[in-house]
Amino acid sequence: MIRRDFLKTGALSALGTSLLSATKPLEQLLVSNKNLVGEAKNIIFLVSDGMSSSTLTMANLVSQRMNGRESKWISLYRDRSITRSLMDTASANSMVTDSAASSSAWGGGKRVNNGSLNVNADGSFNTPILQKFKHAGKKVGCVTTVPITHATPAGFCIANKSRSKQEEIALQYLPLKFDVMMGGGDKYFNSAKRADKKNVYAQFTEAGYHVVKNKSQLSAFKGRQPLLGVFAADALPYTVDYTHDKELQNQVPTLAEMTENAITLMKEHPEGFVLQVEGGKVDWAAHSNDSPGLLFDQLEFDLAVEKAIAFAEQDKNTLVIITTDHGNGNPAIFGEDNVDQKFDLLQKFKHSNDWVLNRIQNSMSASQLIELINDAQGYAISNMQAENLLSHYEKLDGGGLYNVRKLPFELFGKIQAEYTAIHWASMEHSSDYVELAAYGPGSQLINPVLRNTELHQIMLQAAGLPA
Amino acid sequence: MIRRDFLKTGALSALGTSLLSATKPLEQLLVSNKNLVGEAKNIIFLVSDGMSSSTLTMANLVSQRMNGRESKWISLYRDRSITRSLMDTASANSMVTDSAASSSAWGGGKRVNNGSLNVNADGSFNTPILQKFKHAGKKVGCVTTVPITHATPAGFCIANKSRSKQEEIALQYLPLKFDVMMGGGDKYFNSAKRADKKNVYAQFTEAGYHVVKNKSQLSAFKGRQPLLGVFAADALPYTVDYTHDKELQNQVPTLAEMTENAITLMKEHPEGFVLQVEGGKVDWAAHSNDSPGLLFDQLEFDLAVEKAIAFAEQDKNTLVIITTDHGNGNPAIFGEDNVDQKFDLLQKFKHSNDWVLNRIQNSMSASQLIELINDAQGYAISNMQAENLLSHYEKLDGGGLYNVRKLPFELFGKIQAEYTAIHWASMEHSSDYVELAAYGPGSQLINPVLRNTELHQIMLQAAGLPA
Repeated sequence: MIRRDFLKTGALSALGTSLLSATKPLEQLLVSNKNLVGEAKNIIFLVSDGMSSSTLTMANLVSQRMNGRESKWISLYRDRSITRSLMDTASANSMVTDSAASSSAWGGGKRVNNGSLNVNADGSFNTPILQKFKHAGKKVGCVTTVPITHATPAGFCIANKSRSKQEEIALQYLPLKFDVMMGGGDKYFNSAKRADKKNVYAQFTEAGYHVVKNKSQLSAFKGRQPLLGVFAADALPYTVDYTHDKELQNQVPTLAEMTENAITLMKEHPEGFVLQVEGGKVDWAAHSNDSPGLLFDQLEFDLAVEKAIAFAEQDKNTLVIITTDHGNGNPAIFGEDNVDQKFDLLQKFKHSNDWVLNRIQNSMSASQLIELINDAQGYAISNMQAENLLSHYEKLDGGGLYNVRKLPFELFGKIQAEYTAIHWASMEHSSDYVELAAYGPGSQLINPVLRNTELHQIMLQAAGLPA
Repeated sequence: MIRRDFLKTGALSALGTSLLSATKPLEQLLVSNKNLVGEAKNIIFLVSDGMSSSTLTMANLVSQRMNGRESKWISLYRDRSITRSLMDTASANSMVTDSAASSSAWGGGKRVNNGSLNVNADGSFNTPILQKFKHAGKKVGCVTTVPITHATPAGFCIANKSRSKQEEIALQYLPLKFDVMMGGGDKYFNSAKRADKKNVYAQFTEAGYHVVKNKSQLSAFKGRQPLLGVFAADALPYTVDYTHDKELQNQVPTLAEMTENAITLMKEHPEGFVLQVEGGKVDWAAHSNDSPGLLFDQLEFDLAVEKAIAFAEQDKNTLVIITTDHGNGNPAIFGEDNVDQKFDLLQKFKHSNDWVLNRIQNSMSASQLIELINDAQGYAISNMQAENLLSHYEKLDGGGLYNVRKLPFELFGKIQAEYTAIHWASMEHSSDYVELAAYGPGSQLINPVLRNTELHQIMLQAAGLPA
């Protein structure tokens, strides 16, 4: 524990009204006074991975048209309760970052090359922010819908030359004793699945962790030891698939549930906590041009935002940062012909494109495929479109069916666009500046235009830690 | 002239510091006091037509990498001198608006169906805002890089069931006696080109307008009568083509020059002025997936923003609104392989895709086409790509060469993406929420999330006119 030598929120009023002039926005005055830091006991950092700005619009449109209410994110703008910013997400070696370099920019405060986790080009390391906060006496943790060893949580936790070494990253987590680590990624912990056959779960248990593997085990845990929760072999299911699968709902917690649990487990800690929350499959959906996967996962992310803000509103000592690490695919509703009607079709979707494409068999007839898609997504593709999709399965051997890289995601996205009006520019990340919203003490430190690396110092400063 | 019964800027300080609390942003306090209006003597409303948010990022990246400085628009965010907002641009009959409906939302304060200019579905009209301001005693005007009769200026000036009736719209402008109307569109004024053979220029002159048709005539004009400036048959040239064509530079004023001239001609008016400025070819470029056309026109628009802000900073009684009417195409830099290098290639482009495609002849060989593109844009396409482009010209008859709809813009955009890393999602408008920045008195009336129609009331309110 270190001494938190900071001005409390109350000190703001002691600033004196003489400082406040009608011509300068209040935020400007606050930022110009660099002593005004150390108000944030807790930090919740939420990342919708790979969220193009256009994805934020579309999620809000679905929410309004389907649920009759704005997304929490947009409603925060409307309420004027947040600081809004435009963030430059570049990495050390490219205007277009990957998730490892972008998480490292926040987590380590320096831009690194794509693929690296807090390792600089010269081989030196940057200390990840959750190690700094843990050392300072706070509880820390990460929750995600993708493997807990994936780039975005990893960039806050460890340093590794390669994000792809997820088996190694699982072992790097072991000595950290972080308080809550939850997501998918059984294949990086399970002795039957790891290349080295190590039982990493057993190692975590021996090291004093409590390990949970399903929703009820998570709910039952009320202990104080570090928690490891792994709820899927790889990533957690897409929200749209989860919502229509009772079995999954019994087994797997949602991102909002994991977020709420993580907050509950850490909130009583006298020195506060720092939590990273990632909606990781927003990015996976964008890489697959999977519109239903994307939008319902963005809405699930929004429920996690709601949990975080609800806690912060009550707590009053919590900085909440809501952002993304980079754009991806820039999907949007395009055109003028019946776009409202087409877009509304999405509300009835029961399954993601990933779910559909993984269920197509080479042996299927065109009419069987048309029926499969109609059942899962509520529209009938043409015979020619069905034949076109099936032709891609002829090239796949049996084992290839579950190899995401070989499935015709791009083609299916293009076919689907006719029915949903959602078109995609790419299956890759973009260099677009991205949305950032910040709520609570410390949010006034965030400039309206910022570089991703600045968030590292801002988080430390907001919590009263030395830069 | 009407009495402008409003609180001057100075009245803000009379608010009393007791109202100012540290927990509420200053803007919120201002907005909650609805009497704080009528400060804006002048309004400059700048529209980069069809500007996706990603276009704003890319223009800033070109500016930084080519000129070593941020775009004016982004620098306004950094300086915290503006109100930033996210605008919902839908029309009455679609989430995706066209430029007529969007300009009508601002111009008439009501959403109308796509294609209409301030005419409601029941046939009733909404009075366009420049008519209101003219009636209130202000000078008013529009400048644009597309025909002055085009949807965006027209939506501020007149009502017409169809935006396509540009010959009729030219005649509708005649009795308005607006003070500065400048752009392209000779074909809608010229007796030799109009279907009805009317000499509309002569009618404007008879009605008391001064008519100018080139840059030197514009510079020479120091009069006080209404000014009509028409500088091109249809739209003005793309900035990237203009910059490499001495003859054009001698004949045609730039958007920034037109903006500066319009301000100079109206700024001494005791009752103030209202000016709409449109970067109209940003939208045309997006419809053609023409990246060089797009980005250099966005930068030219940014120079117009600079002129407007420079005036407003000095004047202190001018509200500047900078926005777009809708997204278009969502182009961005995508991918991870050498994207910096590829994107930097664009800095050397001498010509737009429009310029290139209009110069391809069916009789050309592949190697001639490769040379043409290399000279104009600085990269060598493959033989196969050249053959593919040429094959589209076989289908065109001679006269079709200048029919934009038939030229292979989409294919060329896709080929070019390999060399520039810029990819496009569509050739149409999107439903994305769009960027809005506002500077000066009245900007505090703008909410962080707003509906396009709200700007109508905000402009009236800011200027102290009855709602």
